[in-house]
Amino acid sequence: MPSSAPPHIGLLRSGRLDAITDVEGVGVGHFTLDEGEVQTGVTVVRPHGRDLFLHRVPAGVSVINGFGKSTGLVQVEELGVLETPIALTNTFSVPAVAQAQIRQCVHANPECGRSLPTVNPLVFECNDGYLNDIQRMAVREVHYSHAEADARKLVPLDGALVQQGSVGAGRGMSCFGLKGGIGTASRRVEMPDAPAHTVGALVLANFGLLQNLVFAGRALGPELAARVKMAEQASAPEKGSIIVLLATDAPLDARQLRRLAVRAGAGIARTGSVFGHGSGDIALAFSTAYTVPLSAHEPMPALAMLHDARLDPFFQAVADSTEQAIVNALWHAQPVTGRDGHARRTLQEVLAELPHEGVHASSAHND
Amino acid sequence: MPSSAPPHIGLLRSGRLDAITDVEGVGVGHFTLDEGEVQTGVTVVRPHGRDLFLHRVPAGVSVINGFGKSTGLVQVEELGVLETPIALTNTFSVPAVAQAQIRQCVHANPECGRSLPTVNPLVFECNDGYLNDIQRMAVREVHYSHAEADARKLVPLDGALVQQGSVGAGRGMSCFGLKGGIGTASRRVEMPDAPAHTVGALVLANFGLLQNLVFAGRALGPELAARVKMAEQASAPEKGSIIVLLATDAPLDARQLRRLAVRAGAGIARTGSVFGHGSGDIALAFSTAYTVPLSAHEPMPALAMLHDARLDPFFQAVADSTEQAIVNALWHAQPVTGRDGHARRTLQEVLAELPHEGVHASSAHND
Amino acid sequence: MPSSAPPHIGLLRSGRLDAITDVEGVGVGHFTLDEGEVQTGVTVVRPHGRDLFLHRVPAGVSVINGFGKSTGLVQVEELGVLETPIALTNTFSVPAVAQAQIRQCVHANPECGRSLPTVNPLVFECNDGYLNDIQRMAVREVHYSHAEADARKLVPLDGALVQQGSVGAGRGMSCFGLKGGIGTASRRVEMPDAPAHTVGALVLANFGLLQNLVFAGRALGPELAARVKMAEQASAPEKGSIIVLLATDAPLDARQLRRLAVRAGAGIARTGSVFGHGSGDIALAFSTAYTVPLSAHEPMPALAMLHDARLDPFFQAVADSTEQAIVNALWHAQPVTGRDGHARRTLQEVLAELPHEGVHASSAHND
Amino acid sequence: MPSSAPPHIGLLRSGRLDAITDVEGVGVGHFTLDEGEVQTGVTVVRPHGRDLFLHRVPAGVSVINGFGKSTGLVQVEELGVLETPIALTNTFSVPAVAQAQIRQCVHANPECGRSLPTVNPLVFECNDGYLNDIQRMAVREVHYSHAEADARKLVPLDGALVQQGSVGAGRGMSCFGLKGGIGTASRRVEMPDAPAHTVGALVLANFGLLQNLVFAGRALGPELAARVKMAEQASAPEKGSIIVLLATDAPLDARQLRRLAVRAGAGIARTGSVFGHGSGDIALAFSTAYTVPLSAHEPMPALAMLHDARLDPFFQAVADSTEQAIVNALWHAQPVTGRDGHARRTLQEVLAELPHEGVHASSAHND
Repeated sequence: MPSSAPPHIGLLRSGRLDAITDVEGVGVGHFTLDEGEVQTGVTVVRPHGRDLFLHRVPAGVSVINGFGKSTGLVQVEELGVLETPIALTNTFSVPAVAQAQIRQCVHANPECGRSLPTVNPLVFECNDGYLNDIQRMAVREVHYSHAEADARKLVPLDGALVQQGSVGAGRGMSCFGLKGGIGTASRRVEMPDAPAHTVGALVLANFGLLQNLVFAGRALGPELAARVKMAEQASAPEKGSIIVLLATDAPLDARQLRRLAVRAGAGIARTGSVFGHGSGDIALAFSTAYTVPLSAHEPMPALAMLHDARLDPFFQAVADSTEQAIVNALWHAQPVTGRDGHARRTLQEVLAELPHEGVHASSAHND
Repeated sequence: MPSSAPPHIGLLRSGRLDAITDVEGVGVGHFTLDEGEVQTGVTVVRPHGRDLFLHRVPAGVSVINGFGKSTGLVQVEELGVLETPIALTNTFSVPAVAQAQIRQCVHANPECGRSLPTVNPLVFECNDGYLNDIQRMAVREVHYSHAEADARKLVPLDGALVQQGSVGAGRGMSCFGLKGGIGTASRRVEMPDAPAHTVGALVLANFGLLQNLVFAGRALGPELAARVKMAEQASAPEKGSIIVLLATDAPLDARQLRRLAVRAGAGIARTGSVFGHGSGDIALAFSTAYTVPLSAHEPMPALAMLHDARLDPFFQAVADSTEQAIVNALWHAQPVTGRDGHARRTLQEVLAELPHEGVHASSAHND
Repeated sequence: MPSSAPPHIGLLRSGRLDAITDVEGVGVGHFTLDEGEVQTGVTVVRPHGRDLFLHRVPAGVSVINGFGKSTGLVQVEELGVLETPIALTNTFSVPAVAQAQIRQCVHANPECGRSLPTVNPLVFECNDGYLNDIQRMAVREVHYSHAEADARKLVPLDGALVQQGSVGAGRGMSCFGLKGGIGTASRRVEMPDAPAHTVGALVLANFGLLQNLVFAGRALGPELAARVKMAEQASAPEKGSIIVLLATDAPLDARQLRRLAVRAGAGIARTGSVFGHGSGDIALAFSTAYTVPLSAHEPMPALAMLHDARLDPFFQAVADSTEQAIVNALWHAQPVTGRDGHARRTLQEVLAELPHEGVHASSAHND
Repeated sequence: MPSSAPPHIGLLRSGRLDAITDVEGVGVGHFTLDEGEVQTGVTVVRPHGRDLFLHRVPAGVSVINGFGKSTGLVQVEELGVLETPIALTNTFSVPAVAQAQIRQCVHANPECGRSLPTVNPLVFECNDGYLNDIQRMAVREVHYSHAEADARKLVPLDGALVQQGSVGAGRGMSCFGLKGGIGTASRRVEMPDAPAHTVGALVLANFGLLQNLVFAGRALGPELAARVKMAEQASAPEKGSIIVLLATDAPLDARQLRRLAVRAGAGIARTGSVFGHGSGDIALAFSTAYTVPLSAHEPMPALAMLHDARLDPFFQAVADSTEQAIVNALWHAQPVTGRDGHARRTLQEVLAELPHEGVHASSAHND
């Protein structure tokens, strides 16, 4: 039977909690709908605790495979900033969550869309239609508000534990034919002649074919696929997606953050994905090192960005924490039964059935 | 007083109606909300009369300035096809319209999001918050349905007249400090050794500073700006946007359609725009020459695309019909009074006040 | 007959010389080959007087139409910096000039390609094959060195006059069926609550069909095309190109500089171009406000960038100075006869033949 | 001691030769310079045996990390076709090879650059400066001609063996601190209801840090790095690059080929790369299923492209053949000593020193 801690990916140390909340100020909140045929939810990541419309954070995007319905990326790519919390949900609930983000911004900023610009909702999605009756569009605006409030609570001084697995937007997600969902991780970047920094990742993992699974460097897919009978699995094309959110406290600009986001692809690929046609694989990286004011009359930040030649350990941290977050999503998943009695087993369950010993935490560090 | 027909842009002939509906099969529908503080609406363009989820059309996108909240572009750029009608509305109503597109697709395709993929809503927007109380989010799903049904009716054999000006999504839009809105135009592409084709444009025009206006080749901006007192106008930065939808019956693939879309920028620039920071300037071009089936089991189209070296007259047609559509939007605008008593005068009104003769249709052809 | 000064484009004031060298520190040099069938050359723009490999400048690129053979853009887009002077030449001479840039960098930095990274040559091109026997590949490495040395001389305290017209890389270029070449211009950006800045443009103008020419807001093309008999002109597709180099002393990062570069398209479009299929239309913008060190061990710049909401006057300055630079290239062109006796007349020549009055400088400001 | 055949990557079968030449018509040629301090060369891939300027092949590009000096990509991205053979060489020899491509095209097409368009050289590069005295710029135009002629010879009916390892452009390349160079592989795509196709890959492998090496699914890096003393290796940042060329006989358009090229990143990532800052990681995919004529007067191809939903096995084939080609490059490398006595050992050498058993071919299929 698997041990309680998942294998550690790579040589870099993780942060205190091995979570995106190890990046100071970042908060994560969930709202989960677990009501029979409805197995879905909303997850919110807040880069900081203040009003993002007034205090934007720099961000960059990498669309690895654009078969996806996320909203808000056009403006992020043009202006290089976020101006709302980041929301994750199921594909058909993007409009409800976007509407909630607009309404919340208008409530906090009554001139939004009048003397002030409109706000750019930022909602990512995966299709949880196997377990969740996605056609019910069960996520309502208030559910986003709950998740967003939850994310606000989760900003203590020292970071906060993040619930992983079948929670929030991850409730109905599948990954490698098993139960997927939310995973998070972090890595420390320590350089001899510069301050240390943290990179955190949070994934909504809903991708992959079981036969391709490489778990923490071990190609478990063929064996698992041979043993586990899953009718839907057999011939199903990859219809999933993975969203990777990356946070860092390093001073990086939007161009550099896009470079970080590109490296999420390395982490995804290590798990056995080839970025399937039907999988919307998108990564977004943001920095908490400074904010960009809404108003052109307020002073702009004037701090030195890191030199690009210093980015290699950050790229390593992105790839490792992305892979770790996927590992963690699989590891912490709880089994879910939903629409039409569809069920997803967890990796822990199927590993426990293997005749030989499972994947121990002691097998960490890729060896 | 100006004559009833606007000046003709360029040397190419227009189609029969000088409208995007000159491209056979294309339909346009509007739903307008004219209720005091609420001055907004929805406009729908249908590339053909069948179910777009099943019969996709090739498309390409050019994001000239990405300060915008349109949704659906990520997937169009990846897959090169549309799978819903194209919707235009105000910025805060994108979620409602996207939701309506999802619901309509699910209604028509009950396996959408289950055994079939999810659907990609495609909604473009401009901010009509000066005339419209955008914070009310007055557009509801049913309004999209009305506009979409209207677009279905408008597919007669020979194309259909398109309402222009302060209608549908154009109801509350402003352009060069005047009343903007919907405009449309078309141009014929006739080559000596090849079949003739049509390019059609439809714009949602909500951009520009009055002082910069070049109307049909005439730099009217400075004079108009000096005469017309508009308090909001004076110091206002450009907060508008312009959406350009382009249709053609020429066989072009997604890459080539993107090339067409890029040339919308030339048409916009000729009117005096410099693609202002706050203006989401986006063009999308689609072809009606063939469809791409949803199902990989149905045969793919096997027709020859046009050689890229034949695209120059199409580029000319795109630039000219885009400029013409903007001219037409200004020309056909009706004055609107809306939120807080805000009002926009029309170009026709302010031209009528000029001491010298106005801009006649006879001044056509850029001379 | 035309007056000696070309019309002024737009409402913004130009810098002292109306040249890219109005941006402090920027130097321009030419080397011209005028030897019968060989009518070509090299033009070099230096952002500053120091070694660019050691002291990079931030830059952004807009590829408006990528039918072109320029080299070096992949790295500029990734890293957002220039590391050589910018070179312009004819299409088939890109390799010779790139080779010269490499050799010069190695000479100045003997560890280049060893303990230091390799250098990224940055060479833009247009096809001057109508006037120049491009197949001779007459440009040699030493010609780049001459032009580069010339650019170093041209860095006095107060900027320097820039030769325009049929000079340097512009020697053999054609524009709107007339003699094209090098043009330059500048505009001042003055904001009430911020320091003034300068935007400079330098173009290598080799694009356009005569019938489409709009010169300083006047659609001269149809009349000129009707009068001027140019056999090659009649049926020729657009095979030209235009390169636009933009300089500013405003503190902008690579993302913002790309936004500036996009607006060069507006300036080009105003002259009658629709970005023809065969025309490689590319713009690059750089800032002289700060440099990025080669070495990660040197301190990075720590100055505040301008807020994006302050970019509108820069966008205007880019569009206006680009159009002005094209106007100036046409205005200052000298007639050239070259390969196979091919000749290009100048705009001044054909304007002088018009029965009515020409285009005076007094017709400035687009009215 | 390693067996003579490298491990097989993935579950798909390779083509007859496990080489890019398994795609019918594709030829590969090398010219190697092995002269003391000069350890470099040229490799040429020809999509077919005819004149590529007249008979273009569709192509798409993915720039994974743009720290690179390759030339020709701007036009490939715009027009979606290749018009020369594809050349690989060292960074400082790009100009010489580009010049050779121009000269060869002009020789074959005397109107190139006159009545016909200019030609777009397509040269990819990696920095072999550790083993090769790159500053000598030893590659001359004739060396390209030799390699290109070699590629023509290599087009027999049934494909041709491709030399791998320290040959051609691969002569001086390093990979994971070991000897890198040229590798190639192929995979068959067999679908139940459609014709079979082949995907071939050829890499110029010059990337990676030894400690990160994952060889055929085994994380050998940490152990090898601990044992192998390589002074330069220890602290060296990644300054390499990898170029991946992908061929297929499947009918795909440029947009789809770009999607294939993106998946090369998955193959690279599996070997332990995180796409290092200094590594120019670029993939280009082309199809041999049809050609696009230079002349707009010749008929365009009219065959059906594959449906995008059929691309998943191609994506798998791209990732697997890319990884296999890297494995093969390492496996077939010969030790090279060059500049300043610098030497790179081969993977086979260092594996042979490991106390336990090496990596056998029988360990294939990722287990």
